[in-house]
Amino acid sequence: MVNYPKGVTGQTGPINNNVRKGKTTQRGMIFGRRGMGLEDAINEANEYYLSNHLAVIYKKPTPVTIVNVDYPARSAAKITEAYFQKPSTTDYNGIYQGRYIDFDAKETKNKTTFPMKNFHEHQIRHLAEIVAQGGVGFVLVQFTALDETYLYPAPELVRRWQDLEGHRSLTYQEIVETGYQVPAKLNPNLDYLHAVDQYLLDLNRK
Amino acid sequence: MVNYPKGVTGQTGPINNNVRKGKTTQRGMIFGRRGMGLEDAINEANEYYLSNHLAVIYKKPTPVTIVNVDYPARSAAKITEAYFQKPSTTDYNGIYQGRYIDFDAKETKNKTTFPMKNFHEHQIRHLAEIVAQGGVGFVLVQFTALDETYLYPAPELVRRWQDLEGHRSLTYQEIVETGYQVPAKLNPNLDYLHAVDQYLLDLNRK
Repeated sequence: MVNYPKGVTGQTGPINNNVRKGKTTQRGMIFGRRGMGLEDAINEANEYYLSNHLAVIYKKPTPVTIVNVDYPARSAAKITEAYFQKPSTTDYNGIYQGRYIDFDAKETKNKTTFPMKNFHEHQIRHLAEIVAQGGVGFVLVQFTALDETYLYPAPELVRRWQDLEGHRSLTYQEIVETGYQVPAKLNPNLDYLHAVDQYLLDLNRK
Repeated sequence: MVNYPKGVTGQTGPINNNVRKGKTTQRGMIFGRRGMGLEDAINEANEYYLSNHLAVIYKKPTPVTIVNVDYPARSAAKITEAYFQKPSTTDYNGIYQGRYIDFDAKETKNKTTFPMKNFHEHQIRHLAEIVAQGGVGFVLVQFTALDETYLYPAPELVRRWQDLEGHRSLTYQEIVETGYQVPAKLNPNLDYLHAVDQYLLDLNRK
């Protein structure tokens, strides 16, 4: 089996065929989608938001550098040599209730910390630019072992990145205290705009 | 030489090496960049806006479906089979002065009309969704023979698309009358945010 990097099929295709199937847990059917990957859960939520006219948010296609393309007669152009590029921005952006939304999604198996090395400096810089322009930036951090996902605001992330000089880790505790938990629901499974609502309420209070 | 589709190098690389060189016109050096493609001119403007903290707007990477990847030992993963996907959205989005910006760019050699077949239905639908969410949507239409570029607002485009049932053409005259001309400048060459400013002024007046 080919190991695709995450999200490699880009934004337009159907949800990946290699969606991890729901784990068979003791709770069986009810939590049948608990094991779905973070990216798949976000894509599912975005499709739900789009079809219900709640938001227009897409995952950006994976950037690749194309070196060689064949143009067979009467067939689609075939890329025969290409390489993955390092993205210079975040993976997701769009619009929600007139606000520009921009975020990345990260998973960790750790239960008590979230290592800063999960972020690249250019992503932090990008999120800082977004905040300076009045956008709503954040990361969705999923603690897979705990099955908990938090919206962690970009201004906080940028500040802590500078404190920690890009090294060491955020603690689970500070993410819980400063972040906004994403509720688990049936549809969409990962209703992250609910956490965005809570964050916007706090932003507007300031 | 390999004919890359437009923008195939994605968002993170340097400006394409295959930038069309400035035409040698009678006006020589001064208009040395007149012949630069529309996409290159937009990328140049976006870099200018980003480095001057005026806006954060990127071209989305070209979406590709990856079918096969080789992982040679001690080398970067090499994509050996992939195909271009039809984009389901527009090519550019980002944030400017707190507003969500979303647009596509189209060139025509025609001098008097702009054929609707330049747009795909899903792009029109996407722009309609953006407008419904309070975003600023438009297309940049370049009449290459006239060396004139206009911002043509998405609400107008959606309305005219419905009138014309996706067929026939917009006239040059209606684009001039309803659109906003992008001024030619030295830096950036295609200062399209100037046209966005004019459009926002009119929007705020309504």
